[in-house]
Amino acid sequence: IHFCPIPGGALITNNNIPASDTASSGFLGNLLVVPMDGSHWVGIKAIAQEMGRRGHRVTVVIPEISMRMGPGKHYDTVTYPVPYDKAHIDSIMSSLKDMMEKSSFTEKIRKGFSKMQKFTGFMHTTAESLLFNVSLISHLAQQNFDAVLTDPVAPTGSLIARKLGIPTINLLRGLPCSLDMKSAGCPSPPSYVPRFLTRYTDKMSFQERAFNTLVALLEPLLCRLLYWHFDQIAYQFLGEEVGIAEVLSESAIWLLRLDFTLEFPRPIMPNVVLVGGINCNVRHPLPEDLESWVSGEHGFVVFTLGTMLSDLPEETTSVFLEAFRQIPQKVIWRYTGQVPDSFPENVKLMNWVPQNDLLAHPGARAFITHAGSHGLFEGLCHAVPMVMMPFGGDQPDNAVRLASRGAGVVLDIYSITTESLLQGLNEVINDTRYKENMQKLSALHKDRPVDPLDLSVYWTEFVMRHKGAKHLRPAVLDLNWLQYYCLDVIAVLASVVLFFVILIVKCLKLCFWKLSRKRKQD
Amino acid sequence: IHFCPIPGGALITNNNIPASDTASSGFLGNLLVVPMDGSHWVGIKAIAQEMGRRGHRVTVVIPEISMRMGPGKHYDTVTYPVPYDKAHIDSIMSSLKDMMEKSSFTEKIRKGFSKMQKFTGFMHTTAESLLFNVSLISHLAQQNFDAVLTDPVAPTGSLIARKLGIPTINLLRGLPCSLDMKSAGCPSPPSYVPRFLTRYTDKMSFQERAFNTLVALLEPLLCRLLYWHFDQIAYQFLGEEVGIAEVLSESAIWLLRLDFTLEFPRPIMPNVVLVGGINCNVRHPLPEDLESWVSGEHGFVVFTLGTMLSDLPEETTSVFLEAFRQIPQKVIWRYTGQVPDSFPENVKLMNWVPQNDLLAHPGARAFITHAGSHGLFEGLCHAVPMVMMPFGGDQPDNAVRLASRGAGVVLDIYSITTESLLQGLNEVINDTRYKENMQKLSALHKDRPVDPLDLSVYWTEFVMRHKGAKHLRPAVLDLNWLQYYCLDVIAVLASVVLFFVILIVKCLKLCFWKLSRKRKQD
Repeated sequence: IHFCPIPGGALITNNNIPASDTASSGFLGNLLVVPMDGSHWVGIKAIAQEMGRRGHRVTVVIPEISMRMGPGKHYDTVTYPVPYDKAHIDSIMSSLKDMMEKSSFTEKIRKGFSKMQKFTGFMHTTAESLLFNVSLISHLAQQNFDAVLTDPVAPTGSLIARKLGIPTINLLRGLPCSLDMKSAGCPSPPSYVPRFLTRYTDKMSFQERAFNTLVALLEPLLCRLLYWHFDQIAYQFLGEEVGIAEVLSESAIWLLRLDFTLEFPRPIMPNVVLVGGINCNVRHPLPEDLESWVSGEHGFVVFTLGTMLSDLPEETTSVFLEAFRQIPQKVIWRYTGQVPDSFPENVKLMNWVPQNDLLAHPGARAFITHAGSHGLFEGLCHAVPMVMMPFGGDQPDNAVRLASRGAGVVLDIYSITTESLLQGLNEVINDTRYKENMQKLSALHKDRPVDPLDLSVYWTEFVMRHKGAKHLRPAVLDLNWLQYYCLDVIAVLASVVLFFVILIVKCLKLCFWKLSRKRKQD
Repeated sequence: IHFCPIPGGALITNNNIPASDTASSGFLGNLLVVPMDGSHWVGIKAIAQEMGRRGHRVTVVIPEISMRMGPGKHYDTVTYPVPYDKAHIDSIMSSLKDMMEKSSFTEKIRKGFSKMQKFTGFMHTTAESLLFNVSLISHLAQQNFDAVLTDPVAPTGSLIARKLGIPTINLLRGLPCSLDMKSAGCPSPPSYVPRFLTRYTDKMSFQERAFNTLVALLEPLLCRLLYWHFDQIAYQFLGEEVGIAEVLSESAIWLLRLDFTLEFPRPIMPNVVLVGGINCNVRHPLPEDLESWVSGEHGFVVFTLGTMLSDLPEETTSVFLEAFRQIPQKVIWRYTGQVPDSFPENVKLMNWVPQNDLLAHPGARAFITHAGSHGLFEGLCHAVPMVMMPFGGDQPDNAVRLASRGAGVVLDIYSITTESLLQGLNEVINDTRYKENMQKLSALHKDRPVDPLDLSVYWTEFVMRHKGAKHLRPAVLDLNWLQYYCLDVIAVLASVVLFFVILIVKCLKLCFWKLSRKRKQD
């Protein structure tokens, strides 16, 4: 580890990057990676690692303080200082536990709003710390990067790419207000493309369709609100009047962590590549003690609620433990809270669990999950039916998608009882249809011409080789909405028709008048 | 070769099908292939061969009389009798030469109409000969096929698939009236998706957009007209009230012989797979005499106008020869007409040319072509700039696409002169920008994660393995157009708004009236 001469920026160089034996077509490039923290880091790290392993120079830019991001074997890391500490991040994350505690409705709304404010504030601060670190940005500008790989949930990487004049590859699950689809130019007809957070499927009743259409009509407004602060940052950073939507529409390739075994079929554009299940194949054997603990005729249940909810209020914890006491399966629970004085023998509480390796184990009978996209794909990959308890973000939508395929059940975590949990577990474990549906879905999911990680690396290299993917840029991005919907054409055509109708009516009137006058004269 | 016990159906079995070493995932299936004749046969034959080579049982059903279709090394062939002979096919094909002859406008229209009538009649007769061959159809029904691979330009294969209850894989360049996109559920916004035969690009002026929108509005009517006879056949064959559009919308996978290096970016659905350039890699060295003839410092020009126009009126022939006399390059011309008494030394007339192998030769300087999709992809594959002379079908659109990329010029074959031809040839041969643009385009075209033939085979096997691809079927196919465009929702929303506006106006009027009455009373 050595420090580079950037004030407030540290460069961690890896001396053990091996000479590659696998870089495609002999092209070796220079990639900048601007990732997001939390579970978002998983997929982007996998691509960064693989790109480095193939011999490309890969530089990952991360804040000094983060939840999960850090150095890796095959890439360099540049860090930048941020005006917060680890305790601040922990406090933002733990706010989810507060949400679970019993409180009045208005109190819940207040808490939810405060949580969201904290979270967006944290994202803006992190972005500003990078973008307005002048020496770091000018250092990056000198590196002659071929492309930027980024997660545009915070469009920091996209802004740097625009400033540096290099193409962008996005890796993401999706953006709120459909900004990703809009920026990629994908049509999203509200008649069968359910909107974010509606929990609808692709088959909607009239009422659902009406509500979905209303949401679609309000999306542009929602985008304005959500990206208002980033629009300001863009103006300050780029010095030009350009919004985030326009910056994102310049993206060369969109790698979406989706797969149509879960997602409802919808139109996509040629520069949108689906790479859902990017880390399906990365697996290791279980540690020996865990292996011997999980083995048993009834198998086991894996229980994790993600990075953001690994601790629960005492009351909720006992609801879960009471249910687990009544099932023959063992339960491995990722739990970082206060360990209760007594709990059933078939339950193991662990600070961290090798989730993917556990799901890959033949003994896994069910997966209790918050239905985050990573966990969902891991369960899908290993065909483990799920009991899903979404609590926010894309999770309720994810859960609806899997449940609509008959491969899991959805429970409300805010009103969970021992009975409802027991019923859910019994259903997915003992009703063989869940396992069968899951196995069919899993077989479809894994039947792909190219592994999602390889495909991601392929398109990243493609953009670097060809300096973008301009031939895939749809012309729709140059049309305004009047032109896109041909409203101007329809207006002119309607005017022409109207003109002729009026003309004919006038003529008829004139003829009639003349005729009647003539008759009178006669 | 042995005849099977079907009256009027012959089965040609291959005894030299090798045990496969390459079938994916150990699954070996049973595939029925219902191909189209002419250049359409090329791609489908390649897939049939490769499927057979991988160990699947492949049965190709073709008419006894055809232009190009026939037995192959890795598949079985079943033939059925047809009520026409080779001379009839030749007469239909040669009618194109008549179109080239000088004649009045009305005469040309008459000829064009008669040609089209002959051609569609030929297609209907061929389809009926297969579908109403009761013994053959019942023989096919007993074979337990896993899927049908077909070219739906004539929807014969799709009808058989529906009758037999098995899934369909389509391989095609496109259908008139956008029936392919409509049946696959792909949105085709007329604001940037140019319609068939308009020769527009994806960047249209207001007038072009207006005309394109009109064409789009008329497409459903055009589809009705074009498929009217096939709709009748469908009713007779299936015994149910179902149109071709509905039959096609049940297709599992659409393999489109398109590529976005040529095609303008547009929305596609998850079950649409682009496999343009399916036969790029199939090449052989030139025969020795041809190799020695083409070699020379100035290189050579390849000149073919496809299967359907290999003979020209004398007058047009001499226009071409006069131009060729004035260029230093050699010219290889696929020409089946009467050989003129004298022609320049640098011209070689051949009944058949190894087009792909010639284009792959480093000496190839230019490609004079009618811009059929196969030739276009071969030229693109080997980066040979083109002089394009489209005369019908998708050719004018293909030509516009390549010309818009600066990789070729378009000439009007009906008004060609020695001067215009010379100018076109000089441009693409001597202006290096054409070659450079073509090389860039070719590099993009060939930079694909999976070879198009492998991809076609992959998805064919996928459909056979999973008995279809139901998870990719978009919900849009179950909506009528009122629902699709949410016109019902908009009507209700508008009514609600109108109701409240009227209510408010009435209230205000009432208030105003009461107020004014009160004032009067005061």
